[in-house]
Amino acid sequence: MGDYQQDPMVHLELTGNTGLVLRRPFDPTAHDLDASFRLTRFADLKGRCCKVPKEVLEKLVSSLQQDYMQDPDQPFMPMTSPRIGIGLDCSVIPLRHGGLCMVQTTDFFYPIVDDPYMMGKIACANVLSDLYAMGVTECDNMLMLLAVSTKMIEKERDVVIPLIMRGFKDSALEAGTSVTGGHSVVNPWCTIGGVATTICQQNEFIVPDNAVVGDVLVLTKALGTQVAVNAHQWLDQSERWNRIKLVVSEEDVRKAYHRAMDSMSRLNRVAARLMHKYNAHGATDVTGFGLLGHAQTLASHQKNEVSFVIHNLPVIAKMAAVAKACGNMFQLLQGHSAETSGGLLICLPREQAAAYCKDIEKQEGCQAWIIGIVEKGSRTARIIDKPRVIEVPAKD
Amino acid sequence: MGDYQQDPMVHLELTGNTGLVLRRPFDPTAHDLDASFRLTRFADLKGRCCKVPKEVLEKLVSSLQQDYMQDPDQPFMPMTSPRIGIGLDCSVIPLRHGGLCMVQTTDFFYPIVDDPYMMGKIACANVLSDLYAMGVTECDNMLMLLAVSTKMIEKERDVVIPLIMRGFKDSALEAGTSVTGGHSVVNPWCTIGGVATTICQQNEFIVPDNAVVGDVLVLTKALGTQVAVNAHQWLDQSERWNRIKLVVSEEDVRKAYHRAMDSMSRLNRVAARLMHKYNAHGATDVTGFGLLGHAQTLASHQKNEVSFVIHNLPVIAKMAAVAKACGNMFQLLQGHSAETSGGLLICLPREQAAAYCKDIEKQEGCQAWIIGIVEKGSRTARIIDKPRVIEVPAKD
Repeated sequence: MGDYQQDPMVHLELTGNTGLVLRRPFDPTAHDLDASFRLTRFADLKGRCCKVPKEVLEKLVSSLQQDYMQDPDQPFMPMTSPRIGIGLDCSVIPLRHGGLCMVQTTDFFYPIVDDPYMMGKIACANVLSDLYAMGVTECDNMLMLLAVSTKMIEKERDVVIPLIMRGFKDSALEAGTSVTGGHSVVNPWCTIGGVATTICQQNEFIVPDNAVVGDVLVLTKALGTQVAVNAHQWLDQSERWNRIKLVVSEEDVRKAYHRAMDSMSRLNRVAARLMHKYNAHGATDVTGFGLLGHAQTLASHQKNEVSFVIHNLPVIAKMAAVAKACGNMFQLLQGHSAETSGGLLICLPREQAAAYCKDIEKQEGCQAWIIGIVEKGSRTARIIDKPRVIEVPAKD
Repeated sequence: MGDYQQDPMVHLELTGNTGLVLRRPFDPTAHDLDASFRLTRFADLKGRCCKVPKEVLEKLVSSLQQDYMQDPDQPFMPMTSPRIGIGLDCSVIPLRHGGLCMVQTTDFFYPIVDDPYMMGKIACANVLSDLYAMGVTECDNMLMLLAVSTKMIEKERDVVIPLIMRGFKDSALEAGTSVTGGHSVVNPWCTIGGVATTICQQNEFIVPDNAVVGDVLVLTKALGTQVAVNAHQWLDQSERWNRIKLVVSEEDVRKAYHRAMDSMSRLNRVAARLMHKYNAHGATDVTGFGLLGHAQTLASHQKNEVSFVIHNLPVIAKMAAVAKACGNMFQLLQGHSAETSGGLLICLPREQAAAYCKDIEKQEGCQAWIIGIVEKGSRTARIIDKPRVIEVPAKD
């Protein structure tokens, strides 16, 4: 992995309010760590697999609800949506104080990239994304959740954990909030996550249940982050690499990996702000259950009898080919590939959608895509038979 | 472990608002699980060991602070106490809205008892305890954090997780709050925890920095929970059991274990409410760093030049002897043994302390103890050379 160190790619990264500073990719040897050090090795599950399957969660939670409902003496628990791990992206709780609400979310997962600083940024962007999906743009407080791997030697821990913390905090700062506390433990797998909480007026969030026939679906980040981070790990594993090297070059994979890191660490905050400006009817963020999983959940919450039909799949360049080459294990084109800190999937009035996409591109220099339509239906979502794959190139 | 099933002890447990219902201890076979099923086996570290050592945390966090302070262009991060994992028990954040504050905390850890329902209750009481230590008695919202062990078979998962969830929710209900969301993953070790958040006026919490010379220290729960849960596990491990069987009977250990479970699942809410009534000058809750660790942190935050001197150690009956018999590995009498969901350690005006203890006993039927004094000093805490050990019997 000597060439890892000579990798010409650099990150642009916002530090504080002072502007842009060039930053090289994480180089373990620059921190006196072995050149073979890989943060992603401190967990055996990645992305989707780290989630409790949706069906299992539903079973666990529903059995709990039955317990309560079967007991006539037991006052009905306020198990309204959002329920544990499923349902809406945030909890929304009316407060005792003057019409205010608390909007709150938590998320944590395992390392998916090898740069600890970027991993911290991604974890923070990922937690905040649940707020942004509700159209909330201000976060009042964050907590950090951290598990240090029992398998990390002291030196590794002392290098990696401060970098993760710093990435997390820098991202919070960029979001206009701060991290005031948290909890850390040791655990076989390294774990990173957080809690984001906002106290706001009712009009500051958008309840995602208002899609109408004729709306269109907009997606604000390309798919394929999971494929990209896996393909990048396979550069170290010749057997796996051999399965995909016919469809992709090492350079392609590195570009896709950096594209994925940029994408995952980008906040959905502008996307959330523009939801208000263009009268969004509801949104969710695309994460562990993949585009279709989250589209289905969003569809199931609609007040109107609508369904979502997805025609276009914007995918990080070459990752559709990689996904196909490895026997479709990711189910990327079926909409099941997990994303981390993915884009917002937004229901917008048809006449506003193009302006929304144009505005986001103007403000952030990043594309958004109209990927589908809302039609009459029974609150489900599907991808058409042969969706159009839009190849989204790396920026450089 | 046949006698586990015939264990005559039963739990009194509050279900909803309907009063007391008898509940037998968890019996794996009653749920079609193997009689040898032990929840505590789904993690290799217990209590104290699961925490990142205090010195390490301080080093990690302080290196982060230096990073920020060394960069002149970097606006100073609001890393006020409470800092990550150390410092005060909660984050306190002033809000944009009419003098309100957000008080927030998070905690998670590994199974320490084998009854999943009780484990859920303990985890919830443990999270809430940080709010109570600040004198906050109302919690507006809770989130649950859950990691299902990769080593659990499906049947075990389907039995255990709903019970944990139910225990957690019942405890939240008892505390007058509810669980509206959370996050779950799979992980080698089973992990349980949560987030507790309150929005309140400034006068609803007590900043724990106001101890004065002449105050006394009150502790609201007995020490030794860690020793008790370990001794209980050693009933299954003849080699370890042989080390302590000369000082304790199996019956003693079972009683201590149930005493510990009762204690850990008991909310510190009444203790918090009475802090206001008796003009407490500050408090903390005793958890992973042991009585002395938390006393030292509390002392270090004081405005006045005071120190804490601890004379008395109330300990669950026989657990001091057990701790001694196993080579002092717990450091119980040195104040370092981890507690889970321990009592509040409160600085009270001398003339109020006895009334505080009497009131808590009247309301809850549980003792509290005056364990030490506040004297002039340099914001440290110590236990005297030969502290008096108060043996606290099991209730039955």
